[in-house]
Amino acid sequence: MKLQLAMDELGLSEALEALKELHPYVDIVEVGTPFLIDAGREAVRQIKESYPELEVLCDAKIMDAGAYEAQLAYDAGADYVTVLGITDMLTVNGCVEQAQKQERQVMVDLICVQNVAERVPMLEELGVDVLAVHTGADQQHAGRTPLEDLKELTHYAKKAQVAVAGGINSETIDAYVALKPDIVIVGSGILNAEDPVEAARVIKKALS
Amino acid sequence: MKLQLAMDELGLSEALEALKELHPYVDIVEVGTPFLIDAGREAVRQIKESYPELEVLCDAKIMDAGAYEAQLAYDAGADYVTVLGITDMLTVNGCVEQAQKQERQVMVDLICVQNVAERVPMLEELGVDVLAVHTGADQQHAGRTPLEDLKELTHYAKKAQVAVAGGINSETIDAYVALKPDIVIVGSGILNAEDPVEAARVIKKALS
Repeated sequence: MKLQLAMDELGLSEALEALKELHPYVDIVEVGTPFLIDAGREAVRQIKESYPELEVLCDAKIMDAGAYEAQLAYDAGADYVTVLGITDMLTVNGCVEQAQKQERQVMVDLICVQNVAERVPMLEELGVDVLAVHTGADQQHAGRTPLEDLKELTHYAKKAQVAVAGGINSETIDAYVALKPDIVIVGSGILNAEDPVEAARVIKKALS
Repeated sequence: MKLQLAMDELGLSEALEALKELHPYVDIVEVGTPFLIDAGREAVRQIKESYPELEVLCDAKIMDAGAYEAQLAYDAGADYVTVLGITDMLTVNGCVEQAQKQERQVMVDLICVQNVAERVPMLEELGVDVLAVHTGADQQHAGRTPLEDLKELTHYAKKAQVAVAGGINSETIDAYVALKPDIVIVGSGILNAEDPVEAARVIKKALS
């Protein structure tokens, strides 16, 4: 299982600073959506240049102009770009076609998708690489977790890899590991932990 | 009626260059989603600094972390930020609360919203400022236009302003004007026209 570190509420210099200690525990560095709004795809470029041995994900949450926006991310060095599972399948298809041209990957963020049983086969048919269940930050504040959604997704996903995100930390990691996702996405559970390196170490160990 | 110029497939220096000739015709400058991915919110900052008399919209298409992402845009000088109408109402509410704190505005992008009759009253109840019907670029390539959607939205919108986007140009503008939206959003219809200034002039005149 891979550990994806979601960097959301940081500037570029802070993110690079945090990675100095954390990179040994991380498989995929995520340039989170707010980080991308703040710094643009330059963040992807600099992180990939600094850590070419790590994969980098650009959390663009693409909703339209799939091929064009995916290319912006891939050209900056992203290994993965995210597209919203709730968008038009034309847009998802544009991302997939661009990924295939550049030999990169597409992760679908299933945030707010209600009809998983119906959407997952459509998304897999298009050839997406990863399906991610995601309880948003605003939903977490209302007390929700992605555990039930992960159970549902593992039931329906037949081909794509499975990822999970949404408030996971070193205390709750085991419940997710038990469901055997391919990628576990952790952000504040590491970055806002009292000891971020220790949290990363514990989580990485739980995944291995 | 206001003219919103959507700048999508440009870098920051190209956008500033294009605005030199186009700014007299424009009410709202939109930092489009791909432009935002490319340049980050620095694009909002520099455009607002260069044209403080114009309004600037940051097309972040917020899907989560409403208050936080809206603040990123507003702090950079955006007068409006966009949130996706398809997302959780918790996220829309976060954007609205942040807008009210900073005395700015929220535009809801209704792209891919199927149940307009149901969503519009929910969004207006939360206090959003503008509702925008939007036929995405990928959908336009499949032959769709936002004209029917605009007719539907004007039927259901009771309080919010109404905007329309999706492939509008100087030849099709009159059909939209006839439905009296508050904001007409044009991108490639101006920027990719043979004569962008003439296209902007014709469209601006149609709106007045």
